[in-house]
Amino acid sequence: MPTSRLTIAYDGSPFAGWARQPGQRTVQGELERALAIVLRQGVALTVAGRTDTGVHAWGQVASYPGPPPERLDGVNALLPPEIAVLDARLAPDGFDARRDAIARTYCYRVLARRQRDPFELGRALHWPHRLDEAVLHACAALLPGTHDFTAFTPTETDHVRFERIVSSARWVRDGDILAFWITADAFMRNMIRALVGTMLEVAGGRRDVDGFARLLTGRPRSEGGHTAPAHGLYFASVDYGERS
Amino acid sequence: MPTSRLTIAYDGSPFAGWARQPGQRTVQGELERALAIVLRQGVALTVAGRTDTGVHAWGQVASYPGPPPERLDGVNALLPPEIAVLDARLAPDGFDARRDAIARTYCYRVLARRQRDPFELGRALHWPHRLDEAVLHACAALLPGTHDFTAFTPTETDHVRFERIVSSARWVRDGDILAFWITADAFMRNMIRALVGTMLEVAGGRRDVDGFARLLTGRPRSEGGHTAPAHGLYFASVDYGERS
Repeated sequence: MPTSRLTIAYDGSPFAGWARQPGQRTVQGELERALAIVLRQGVALTVAGRTDTGVHAWGQVASYPGPPPERLDGVNALLPPEIAVLDARLAPDGFDARRDAIARTYCYRVLARRQRDPFELGRALHWPHRLDEAVLHACAALLPGTHDFTAFTPTETDHVRFERIVSSARWVRDGDILAFWITADAFMRNMIRALVGTMLEVAGGRRDVDGFARLLTGRPRSEGGHTAPAHGLYFASVDYGERS
Repeated sequence: MPTSRLTIAYDGSPFAGWARQPGQRTVQGELERALAIVLRQGVALTVAGRTDTGVHAWGQVASYPGPPPERLDGVNALLPPEIAVLDARLAPDGFDARRDAIARTYCYRVLARRQRDPFELGRALHWPHRLDEAVLHACAALLPGTHDFTAFTPTETDHVRFERIVSSARWVRDGDILAFWITADAFMRNMIRALVGTMLEVAGGRRDVDGFARLLTGRPRSEGGHTAPAHGLYFASVDYGERS
């Protein structure tokens, strides 16, 4: 049985996240439905990054045991317009989009100006408030390395370990958009959104950078800042190292 | 009575165009409703470019007799999220956004690749067909100057003259997006969409560049190409010369 690998983009707005759920419109549900028709067999997708409700993706990767669809256009014609399969190909035997990923990159987009932008509606967090960009850079500079991110994930999250290895983190300005790019081995639930919400509090003068640094040492969730909304977050890409 | 000038951006998707129409949701109707509340007086807007149903704007300009709103946020709070007033200020006495405009710039965005992009849905024309970019550039190079654009506007259009003065026209590639930028003294109904639709036919090999050149000499609409859809078109900016 061959293994296939898909690269997928989606606007998360109309979906209840990635994961298939009975009675809900999800990205996985829509993809598996379309693939079953085209491949004439049921497929169960494994994904690099399970995104929450409303989170977007530019380069999500999923895998399944089975052949790739012969025509990508055929799959896309069966999908809602907010989902596009950008690439489908044979993967190395036994490839697993989740297990084989050595790093994931996400981007969180903030519209940092007074007036809103109709073209960023649902695509970036509108943040018309005070924002010290130098402070954002100072916070991001603290993130690379191994830290305990307990302060940035819901208390009910059931993880064995709360350390994650961040390989890069930076804020990049492009016009009125401030984008936070972060790459790590893996992320916990809401972790990036809580990091962004907390950094915005620091950049607004409601917290200080030292306090932010202390949060990276395993402080409880109650000491962290608010969780920024889902619609600013994008699953950007996955690194599979030599298995790509 | 002072005169005020507004700069406005809108995602045209949910609107039946700019112009106020009974029983229809239009950009002018929404703006006049919000301004009447904030200014406590009715206003009648004059606009630089009356956009059709579904056409977008990055920098539309409108004027009205009356003071500018004291707080822009107050106006925007009363508008649908697809419309944003970006700027409001006193204009020179007697300023008229339509009559005083010496040039308008529009942009038509084409997603020129095989697979669709969920983030360009309703924002760019998806064109997965054959497209010779050199031919697009050759067509655009023919546009500057004074031409008779009868072939590019509906036959029922009631104009005194069909000549328009194009000061610049070019195709610009940015990744998978091919954007057609055009500046002229004024445009007729559907003119840019018909120009784009026809240029795409030339670039696909269904017409030749010489034929396109002949269309600029006052040929009938029936000889022109199809009208590209509204959702790729953006009213970009207005030039008021010394009256800006």
